[in-house]
Amino acid sequence: MKITQDLYKSSLTLLTDLYQLTMAYGYWKSGISEKQGVFNLFFRDNPFGGGYTITCGLEYIIDFLNNFRFHDDDLKYLKTLKGYNGTPLFEKAFLDYLKKLTFTCQVDAIPEGTVVFPHEPLIRVQGPLLQCQLLETPLLNIINFQSLIATKASRINIAANGEPVMEFGLRRAQGIDGALAASRAAFIGGCSSTSNVLAGKLFGIPVAGTHAHSWVMSFESELEAFRAYAKVLPNNCVFLVDTYDTLEGVKNAIEVGKMLKDDKEEFVGIRIDSGDLAYFSQKARKLLDDAGFKNTMIIASNDLDENIITSLKQQDSAIKAWGIGTKLVTAFDQPALGAVYKLAALKNTKDQWEYKLKLSEQAIKVNNPGIQQVRRFFNQNKYQADMIYDSQHPLGNKHIIIDPMDPTRRKYIDSAKTNYKDLLVPVFKKGKPVYDLPDIRSIREFVQQEMGKMDKGLKRFVNPHSFPVGLEKKLYDLKTKLVLDLRKI
Amino acid sequence: MKITQDLYKSSLTLLTDLYQLTMAYGYWKSGISEKQGVFNLFFRDNPFGGGYTITCGLEYIIDFLNNFRFHDDDLKYLKTLKGYNGTPLFEKAFLDYLKKLTFTCQVDAIPEGTVVFPHEPLIRVQGPLLQCQLLETPLLNIINFQSLIATKASRINIAANGEPVMEFGLRRAQGIDGALAASRAAFIGGCSSTSNVLAGKLFGIPVAGTHAHSWVMSFESELEAFRAYAKVLPNNCVFLVDTYDTLEGVKNAIEVGKMLKDDKEEFVGIRIDSGDLAYFSQKARKLLDDAGFKNTMIIASNDLDENIITSLKQQDSAIKAWGIGTKLVTAFDQPALGAVYKLAALKNTKDQWEYKLKLSEQAIKVNNPGIQQVRRFFNQNKYQADMIYDSQHPLGNKHIIIDPMDPTRRKYIDSAKTNYKDLLVPVFKKGKPVYDLPDIRSIREFVQQEMGKMDKGLKRFVNPHSFPVGLEKKLYDLKTKLVLDLRKI
Repeated sequence: MKITQDLYKSSLTLLTDLYQLTMAYGYWKSGISEKQGVFNLFFRDNPFGGGYTITCGLEYIIDFLNNFRFHDDDLKYLKTLKGYNGTPLFEKAFLDYLKKLTFTCQVDAIPEGTVVFPHEPLIRVQGPLLQCQLLETPLLNIINFQSLIATKASRINIAANGEPVMEFGLRRAQGIDGALAASRAAFIGGCSSTSNVLAGKLFGIPVAGTHAHSWVMSFESELEAFRAYAKVLPNNCVFLVDTYDTLEGVKNAIEVGKMLKDDKEEFVGIRIDSGDLAYFSQKARKLLDDAGFKNTMIIASNDLDENIITSLKQQDSAIKAWGIGTKLVTAFDQPALGAVYKLAALKNTKDQWEYKLKLSEQAIKVNNPGIQQVRRFFNQNKYQADMIYDSQHPLGNKHIIIDPMDPTRRKYIDSAKTNYKDLLVPVFKKGKPVYDLPDIRSIREFVQQEMGKMDKGLKRFVNPHSFPVGLEKKLYDLKTKLVLDLRKI
Repeated sequence: MKITQDLYKSSLTLLTDLYQLTMAYGYWKSGISEKQGVFNLFFRDNPFGGGYTITCGLEYIIDFLNNFRFHDDDLKYLKTLKGYNGTPLFEKAFLDYLKKLTFTCQVDAIPEGTVVFPHEPLIRVQGPLLQCQLLETPLLNIINFQSLIATKASRINIAANGEPVMEFGLRRAQGIDGALAASRAAFIGGCSSTSNVLAGKLFGIPVAGTHAHSWVMSFESELEAFRAYAKVLPNNCVFLVDTYDTLEGVKNAIEVGKMLKDDKEEFVGIRIDSGDLAYFSQKARKLLDDAGFKNTMIIASNDLDENIITSLKQQDSAIKAWGIGTKLVTAFDQPALGAVYKLAALKNTKDQWEYKLKLSEQAIKVNNPGIQQVRRFFNQNKYQADMIYDSQHPLGNKHIIIDPMDPTRRKYIDSAKTNYKDLLVPVFKKGKPVYDLPDIRSIREFVQQEMGKMDKGLKRFVNPHSFPVGLEKKLYDLKTKLVLDLRKI
C-alpha cells in the first residue's frame, strides 16, 4: 500500500458501501436501474444541542461527481468479490455496464455556508435509481463531516466574539483528510487561520504558527531560545512561554520584545498552552502592560472549545486570540452529524411519481416524501421560518406549515407579505456541472452574513430557540396518508 | 481544487503544522539543524477509560517517510508565505536547502497491533533536529487516529465475544481517509469485514453488505423486494426487515428463505436496524426457528458500541453478528487519543547526549527524557510489567521500576527469572527502510495473540486494572534530577 500513490491515484468511485453495489446490481438485473428516483440528504437534529447547522462540503461533492466513473482497476477488484458460497457476486455483463456508466443525474443543493435546520434536504439527487443509490455513502461522508466542523467552528467563533480563532488540529484529527477537510470547514465556519500547511496550499487558507516547546528545549535557556527565534523570524514573533515556568517565560519574552522594539520590529504576542489560563493571562497582561507592550497579544491554547472560551471570558481573562485543536477538528463532544439519504419518490411505468417513505417506530425516523424544495421566509433581514414543500405542486400565496414532529405546532405565512428565497439551487443538470463555485473566502463571508440573519436565541449554547421549520400542508397531508396506508390503518 | 487530482497527487510533505517549518528555518539559520536529536511519541492515558491501547498506523508512517521530500510545488507555496508585517517568512537559500533535503533519520517503533500503555514510546525518531521536528505532526496524526480506532474495535470485539463485528462506518466517518484508515484499524483491532469497498480494494480487507431500506422501497411490496433480491443475489441473502414492520419483515424474509431452500441456496440472515433490538431479535429467532431456519443469523445495527452489545447480551438477545458504524469509526465517546511527540535528548557540541524534558504544573505532562526502550516482562505467556529504560546505559539483571505518576509504586524484577522482550524495533536506519512489514491479516492475528496475553482485569470496561509500567530506577533518578535542576530547587 502506498498512501500517496495507490490510495488516491485513480478514482474514489469505490468509496461507497458494498450494499450500494449489490443493490445496483439488483436494480440492473431486475430491469429497474434506469427508473427515475429522487433521494434527499438531510439530518434529524442540530449538533451539539445547538439551534442551527452550517451546511458545508459541496465543493468536494462537485469534484467527486465530476470524476465519477469506474476505472479498470475498480472493476478488476469488483470481479474478485464473492458471495457466501464462494461464487462471484457480480456477473461480467454488469461490470461492463459499470465500465460504460456515465453520470447523468440532476443534483440540487443548498449552497455551502447556509444556515440549515433538521429535515431540510441539503442535497437532492434525481436520476436513474442505480446512480442515485451509488452516491449515498460518499455524499453522506463528505456532508456529514464538513457540516459538523463548520458548525462547531461557528460556535467557537460566537464564543470568541470576534477575536481570532486559529485552528491547530492536524495532529489530533481523524486521518489525513479528516484534518484537511476539517481545516477547510473550520475556515468556512469562521476561523481565521489553520496550522495545516497542506490545507493552506490546497485551499488557500491563511496559515499560522511560530514555535513549540521543543524550540525552547533545543537551546541552553529559554531566553536564548526566544532571542534566537527573534533574530531569525522577527516578522513572526509569538513566544510560547510555558515550557518551564509561565511567568518567567513572559519576562523572557518581554526582554526579547525590547530587543525587537529596538530593531523596529513588532512583538506580536505570547502563547500560553497550560495551567490556569485565566490567572496566567491576567498576570501576563500586567507584566506586558507595565513593560509598555500594550498591543502584544495573549494567545491561549490547550483543549479549548466554546464552553471553555465562554468561561474564560466570564473570568475576565486577558486572552485575545484562541488556538483550537482537538475539540474543533474532531467535534469532540459530538463527533458525527448523523445525516441520512432517503428515497423520496420513484417514477412508475406510467411515468408518474410515486412518493416514498420508510416507516419507523420513532416518528423522527419517518422520512418526508416528495421532490422537496425549502422556502425561507425573512423580514427585516431576519429569518422567520422555513417551509419544506413539494416542488411538483403549485403553491398559492397563503401557506400553512406544520412541524413534522408536532402537528399541533403550525404557522400561517402569507408569501405576499414577506420576503422569501428557495434554498436548493441546481448544481448538476443531466450530469453536467452548472453551478458557479464561490471561492472559499466568499463562502466564509457568506457564513458571517448568515449568522447575522439568525435570531440571537438560535445561537445560544444552552436551550437554544427552535427555528420554525414545517412541511407545507399539502405535503404534510400526503405524508400522513402514505404513513397510514403503509400501516394499513 | 480537485480532490482526486490535486489533493494527493504530489506529496504529503506539507501535511504538517506551520510552526514545524518556522522552527526548521530557525534551526537552519541558527546553525543547529544538523544537531542530533531524539524525539519520543507517546500517549498519557488509555482511551475510553480502558486498561490498554493497541498501537496502529506504522504502515502509513513507513509509506509517508519513504515519500518524504519537498516537491517543487511545495516550495513554490512556501515561498508565498509572509510574516505579520508582510515580508516573506523564508529566504530562498532555505527553500533550496529543503529542495535537496533527504530523509536520514533512524526510526524505531513498536510493531502495529502490540498492546501498549501510557508513557511508552511508540515511535522514537533519532536524527538531525530539523528533520525530527518536521515529522512531529504527520506521525501524530497517523498514530493517534489509527491506534484509537484499533483499540475501540478490540473493545467492541471483546463485547461481541467472538461473534463477527462488521464495520459499517464510511458514511459517518470524519472525511475520506478518516473512513479508510478507520476501516484498516478496525480490521486490525478484530472486526471481520468492512462495508467500505475502497478500503477492501486498497487494504485487502473482506467487504460485506447486502441491501438498504431503499431497495425495499423501490418495489411494490417488501415481499416482492426480498424475492427480487434473492433471485439476483442468492449467494448474498441477508434481508433488512425493518423498513415497514419488523416482525412482518421477518415473515416475508422466511417466505423468501423457503424459496432459497428449494433452490438449494442458503438464507444467511436477517438484519434489524431499529427498535428494541433485544425484543425483536428474540421474536425473530422464534419465527425463524419455527420455520426451520435454525442457522439463519440475526444481525443487528443502529448506533451500537461495546456497552450496548454488553447490555444486549445481558438481555439474552438472539443477535449473533454486529454491524457497527458511527460509534466505532469516530470513536464516538472519545474521538482523539492525545498522543504527543517530545524532544528527549540532544547532542551537544562535544558529541555528548544532553537529556531534555519540558516542565509542567501537571506531573503527567512532564515528559520522560532519554533514548528510551521498553522492556516487557512475561511469565507463562502473560504480560507482567513494562520497564521504560535508557538504551544508552548498561542494565544488570535486577531492576527496580518506578511508576512515573506515583514514585511510591515500585516493582522489583529479576531479568534472570522471567522472560522479556524489547518492544521497539528498527524501522529506518540512516533514512532507509529496514523493517519487513507484516500483511494486514498477520497484524490482525497478532492482535488476537496480544489480547490473550493480557490479564482479564485489563480488558474490563469499568475500572480496569492498571498495568505496571515503570521507569527503570536510573532513568527515574535522572529525570528527577533534571526536573529539580530546571526548577532550581
